[in-house]
Amino acid sequence: MSKYLVFGHKNPDTDAIGSAIAMSYYLERLGYEAEPVALGTPNDETQFALDTFNIEAPRVIRTASNEVEHVALVDHNEPQQSVDDIEAVEVDFVVDHHRISGFETAQPLYYRCEPIGCTASVLYKMFQEKGIDIPTSIAGMMLSAVISDTLLFKSPTATKEDQNIAIELAKLAQVDLETYGLELLKSGTNLTDKSDLDILSSDSKNFNMAGYNVRIGQVNTVGFDEVLERKEAILNTMRAEAKAADLDLFILLVTDILDSDSIALVIGEQSRAVEGAFDQVISQDQLTLPGVVSRKKQVIPQLTEAFEVLI
Amino acid sequence: MSKYLVFGHKNPDTDAIGSAIAMSYYLERLGYEAEPVALGTPNDETQFALDTFNIEAPRVIRTASNEVEHVALVDHNEPQQSVDDIEAVEVDFVVDHHRISGFETAQPLYYRCEPIGCTASVLYKMFQEKGIDIPTSIAGMMLSAVISDTLLFKSPTATKEDQNIAIELAKLAQVDLETYGLELLKSGTNLTDKSDLDILSSDSKNFNMAGYNVRIGQVNTVGFDEVLERKEAILNTMRAEAKAADLDLFILLVTDILDSDSIALVIGEQSRAVEGAFDQVISQDQLTLPGVVSRKKQVIPQLTEAFEVLI
Repeated sequence: MSKYLVFGHKNPDTDAIGSAIAMSYYLERLGYEAEPVALGTPNDETQFALDTFNIEAPRVIRTASNEVEHVALVDHNEPQQSVDDIEAVEVDFVVDHHRISGFETAQPLYYRCEPIGCTASVLYKMFQEKGIDIPTSIAGMMLSAVISDTLLFKSPTATKEDQNIAIELAKLAQVDLETYGLELLKSGTNLTDKSDLDILSSDSKNFNMAGYNVRIGQVNTVGFDEVLERKEAILNTMRAEAKAADLDLFILLVTDILDSDSIALVIGEQSRAVEGAFDQVISQDQLTLPGVVSRKKQVIPQLTEAFEVLI
Repeated sequence: MSKYLVFGHKNPDTDAIGSAIAMSYYLERLGYEAEPVALGTPNDETQFALDTFNIEAPRVIRTASNEVEHVALVDHNEPQQSVDDIEAVEVDFVVDHHRISGFETAQPLYYRCEPIGCTASVLYKMFQEKGIDIPTSIAGMMLSAVISDTLLFKSPTATKEDQNIAIELAKLAQVDLETYGLELLKSGTNLTDKSDLDILSSDSKNFNMAGYNVRIGQVNTVGFDEVLERKEAILNTMRAEAKAADLDLFILLVTDILDSDSIALVIGEQSRAVEGAFDQVISQDQLTLPGVVSRKKQVIPQLTEAFEVLI
């Protein structure tokens, strides 16, 4: 059997990179040759985790079929989120925690998906089931993935299972869960060196809602001041981006990871959908969203419904 | 949480029905309300297993959304093999051992697929992982599924893992693996009461190969005499079916489950593809295929390639 490349989604987050490293180790322990790679460079938070646990950032690839015939996917399955030439390789393993969409294989494969907070939590269970010990550094990356995806269990996507697994991983990684968790989350919130466009695009996703082009970016912060000081510049960049990408609505969700609240900056012709979704009036292109931290669970469904009511 | 209906594919085989019964029990033990149902009546082999282990045949359903909002699929994922209104219900669980094709969800789900011989083998691992005991009758149905799908481990789809699991299941089911296995396989081979059309259609699948319409049926026997005595009548029925369904090629694979050999009855304009696939000349509409038992692994790939060479 030839070598496996193991990778998470484009615009990789800590789960995409941490789970690729863990899955690659898991496959090696089962006797396969495997290498973790990434579809982009680590963000600040992921780099903090890599530095803490003394792991080199995975090599960045653009295509896979020039190197291997077989791949393993983590933390994604939808082809548009995957390597550009995904159709040219065989997917033999998938470990994930998302919906399944657009994913097709010609052959039976190993596919493991659970509706829990983090891919690394699913991987933890796979290690347990095979009785494979998790080394300190790998446990550290898996722990970082769980903390990151669940915002230290404050996200509504977090389950009791994620929390219990994180407690075990923290022991293996030899760190205090709460202390390291806050350090990790804070490490991703330094916006000083980031351009307005960086802030808008580092974690942004496009959606089609009732035929309208909607983009929702998200950025983690500690307090809102740092963003609000740059608000006009960010709004101007959003307007330019909306024009360039023909967006009907552009939302930037600014999430305070300590207080578990968000504000949203909103521009575009279809802003009234956001007012409908959250039963609030947008004032100075801004909305306050107490208790909102999850784009997946607390913004997209509400906004999708509001668009459907509007039309 | 409302009740789950749990079911395998249309034209159910012993794995489809046995795994639905096992998965339903597994879900109940996890605290869900669940009922195993089927998308057709049991074949003779499956009925033999149900009678042996004193289990009632699952109720046959045509649609699911009139009863429930949520379902669990076993032994399939492709929508055309599933319940007619699969789009109208939410799939929360899938346990399978096939390729993934055309399967889509709006929400994250539990999806467990492994490239091994039988869905019931995957389920056995899930029971083990959760520490759930398997009752005698459920073990009996799971064992029957493994025996049926792997032809008592003679199929090239069988893995060492399936065999080890079957050994454990036979202990739980309190039967001798070899003795019961042969009895079970033989129970599906009685063709006396079956019409020629029954023989052709009980396990037949359609394929598109290089633009040609290809149908391949399979029937299990002990020895070939029973089929060869009816050969001319079966061939005539095949010709009528081919005309009615506009088939370019119609193959009936007759598999001797004791000797692990097959013969093929072949009709249609594109018969030369079969000659190419097996490097043999068809004589009197018939071909001998020593060692061939698996349509999936030993016929379809070879035939697909032969069609590609031809055009």
